[in-house]
Amino acid sequence: MGLVVQKYGGSSVADAEGIKRVAKRVVEAKKNGHQVVVVVSAMGDTTDELMDLAAEVSPVASGRELDMLLTAGERISMALLAMAITSLGHEAQSFTGSQAGVITDAVHNKARIIDVTPGRIRSSVDQGNIAIVAGFQGVSQNSKDITTLGRGGSDTTAVALAAALDAEVCEIYTDVDGVFTADPRVVKKARKIDWISFEDMLELASSGSKVLLHRCVEYARRYNIPIHVRSSFSGKPGTWVGSPQHERQQEGEAVEQAIISGVAHDTSEAKVTVVGVPDKPGEAAKIFRAIADATINIDMVVQNVSAAATGLTDISFTLPKSEGRKAIEALEKRRAQIGFDALRYDDQIAKISLVGAGMKTNPGVTATFFEALSNAGVNIELISTSEIRISVVTREDDANAAVVAVHTAFGLDSDSDEAVVYGGTGR
Amino acid sequence: MGLVVQKYGGSSVADAEGIKRVAKRVVEAKKNGHQVVVVVSAMGDTTDELMDLAAEVSPVASGRELDMLLTAGERISMALLAMAITSLGHEAQSFTGSQAGVITDAVHNKARIIDVTPGRIRSSVDQGNIAIVAGFQGVSQNSKDITTLGRGGSDTTAVALAAALDAEVCEIYTDVDGVFTADPRVVKKARKIDWISFEDMLELASSGSKVLLHRCVEYARRYNIPIHVRSSFSGKPGTWVGSPQHERQQEGEAVEQAIISGVAHDTSEAKVTVVGVPDKPGEAAKIFRAIADATINIDMVVQNVSAAATGLTDISFTLPKSEGRKAIEALEKRRAQIGFDALRYDDQIAKISLVGAGMKTNPGVTATFFEALSNAGVNIELISTSEIRISVVTREDDANAAVVAVHTAFGLDSDSDEAVVYGGTGR
Repeated sequence: MGLVVQKYGGSSVADAEGIKRVAKRVVEAKKNGHQVVVVVSAMGDTTDELMDLAAEVSPVASGRELDMLLTAGERISMALLAMAITSLGHEAQSFTGSQAGVITDAVHNKARIIDVTPGRIRSSVDQGNIAIVAGFQGVSQNSKDITTLGRGGSDTTAVALAAALDAEVCEIYTDVDGVFTADPRVVKKARKIDWISFEDMLELASSGSKVLLHRCVEYARRYNIPIHVRSSFSGKPGTWVGSPQHERQQEGEAVEQAIISGVAHDTSEAKVTVVGVPDKPGEAAKIFRAIADATINIDMVVQNVSAAATGLTDISFTLPKSEGRKAIEALEKRRAQIGFDALRYDDQIAKISLVGAGMKTNPGVTATFFEALSNAGVNIELISTSEIRISVVTREDDANAAVVAVHTAFGLDSDSDEAVVYGGTGR
Repeated sequence: MGLVVQKYGGSSVADAEGIKRVAKRVVEAKKNGHQVVVVVSAMGDTTDELMDLAAEVSPVASGRELDMLLTAGERISMALLAMAITSLGHEAQSFTGSQAGVITDAVHNKARIIDVTPGRIRSSVDQGNIAIVAGFQGVSQNSKDITTLGRGGSDTTAVALAAALDAEVCEIYTDVDGVFTADPRVVKKARKIDWISFEDMLELASSGSKVLLHRCVEYARRYNIPIHVRSSFSGKPGTWVGSPQHERQQEGEAVEQAIISGVAHDTSEAKVTVVGVPDKPGEAAKIFRAIADATINIDMVVQNVSAAATGLTDISFTLPKSEGRKAIEALEKRRAQIGFDALRYDDQIAKISLVGAGMKTNPGVTATFFEALSNAGVNIELISTSEIRISVVTREDDANAAVVAVHTAFGLDSDSDEAVVYGGTGR
């Protein structure tokens, strides 16, 4: 039996009862013979309450001090969890990110982990303790200031510690049963995925699946640490995320990779269309330089076929709705320089993505995808593909119907065991 | 202009408004040309709330984890104060006890400071920042665990930093105007003391005055750092505590030391009388060994004159009421070995103390003291003296009348400027 890292989010430790429930589960893993390292987030709404306090004392909270403030949240939850474990008769010690050796860059509020030196954690577990580590926080390499890791930071802490400690697995406990073939709130027949590759999980994460963040999966892939996403409210196994090597360990022998892992959707994006752009070299570059200079991240980009008569074309791209205004302003400012007829902005869109490494070698996936959308009466506005993903943009109102139709078409519904026969001539 | 250390307690930073008020005062000191280091306690009831949470998850909270939990309190207040200062246009950086170099022993929940290495604080203020330091906490020398300093810990942090940084003064901001000649709630004519020696302040602190704790004054005396106790709600000067050297600096030239600094009273003690103890060598030792083995601190000890007929005597001592039961049990357990007739326990007592270095050289102080009590109809049950203090035990119900009478008798009342003529032949 080796070492496991378990991570519990804020909803799992929201109150004293939750902390005691988590303590029992942690002790169970220890009793099963594992060395256990636990990463915790702040309790429930603590972080929001601290942010409110910060807003009350200062309209512009500085990065360094905001990090100092927010890290109080995990300090509270980790100390309480250690106490709860001790009162179950097991030894536990809590450690701040800094004490646990989580070394980051100096970018406050969204620092990146650059090294993990878990000497104190290793020696604590080797002495028989359960080690509790504050998620979401670290210490900057040069200035020794306290930093926070930003969104998804606690999951990343857990994976980083698992890598540094060469853990058997990083268990991410959450309030859902695992990763599903589609959002279960939209697709009633969505199925829990038992096993998924790092690559497919990365594509799902960038396509709107919210269970794991891209950043955490990317870290796990780089260090080849399997993740087990599961519910803190039940004992059921959840979803394993890993490499083929882990799959073999899990299953005894490698099973055929599922063709399609799942269907993701995302309604947080908007679409900008630049109309009447001269179809000549350098035009697209001018547009996206303007966007980049405004530090806006874009997602899909599509250029229409040029109308021969005019020599003009349209370029569309998608971006987070929150960046919409900034993008329009950036483009208007360079209108003369870029030379376009009009800008169109549309935030009533949805992105539907089909993810699965199997599509590389299975012809007809794209055709089946488009047929399913067509049969459901869903119009496609943009298309974009990667090696293992196809995404389309539709009307936001059509999103749910589209996801359900595609989910069924690829045999992902939980009561359907039929293989799907692909027609057509590949994608 | 040198460096000042300012300390603000929990009531001064109880909410966002309080924090903003403190920020303004800190900035004022900086504008006056000082380097400023600020020590803060946790906001208002934070510590109590965290203790409640700890009790909810575990009946026996361990020292190490309780310290980890409680130190979250100052982390919140210090980060918020730094933000509030920054929003006033000044640079501020907050530091945990550990970052500030407050090194302690490993006794959790009541650690003692064994060294202060304030390199980061020094370099922060040298760069022009206001440094904010978490009070009440440190890091243990060998295990590098987070510790808390126990009662009065934030005041001690402030004095220790002031000593290590060679500060001009350690300003302790509180919710009263300074140290008074008696408790103003009891004596309406109590006068604020402008200047008091370390020695007299130490005696007042051990006699029931609660403005400064013994521990903090002792530290200041050892390193010869003057303390200025003052209100965080007004701009008025408070009470300076220091050595004769500081008094000269304050006043231009040394003024005659006041004969009596003040009258303190304490109703938190109880009296134990061991009745019918054989009047022979070793008996008192047995009694106080029993008490010491139960780790009980005692205060006054008085042995009556032995009754010649019986060869038996009575021994009385006072101790905190909270230790009463433990002391009685400890003595009963060794009753046979010690050999006494009976134990009497009385928790309806008060201790009245008169403090002042001047009493050493002014005859008649004791007589005046006892006459004042007698004229007020107050009966004396025990008497105990030191070089610069006389304490008596009275009925608890008589305490207020006794304090008022003594305060008046020594000319301490604020509207009385008359010198007091001492009768009698010395104490």
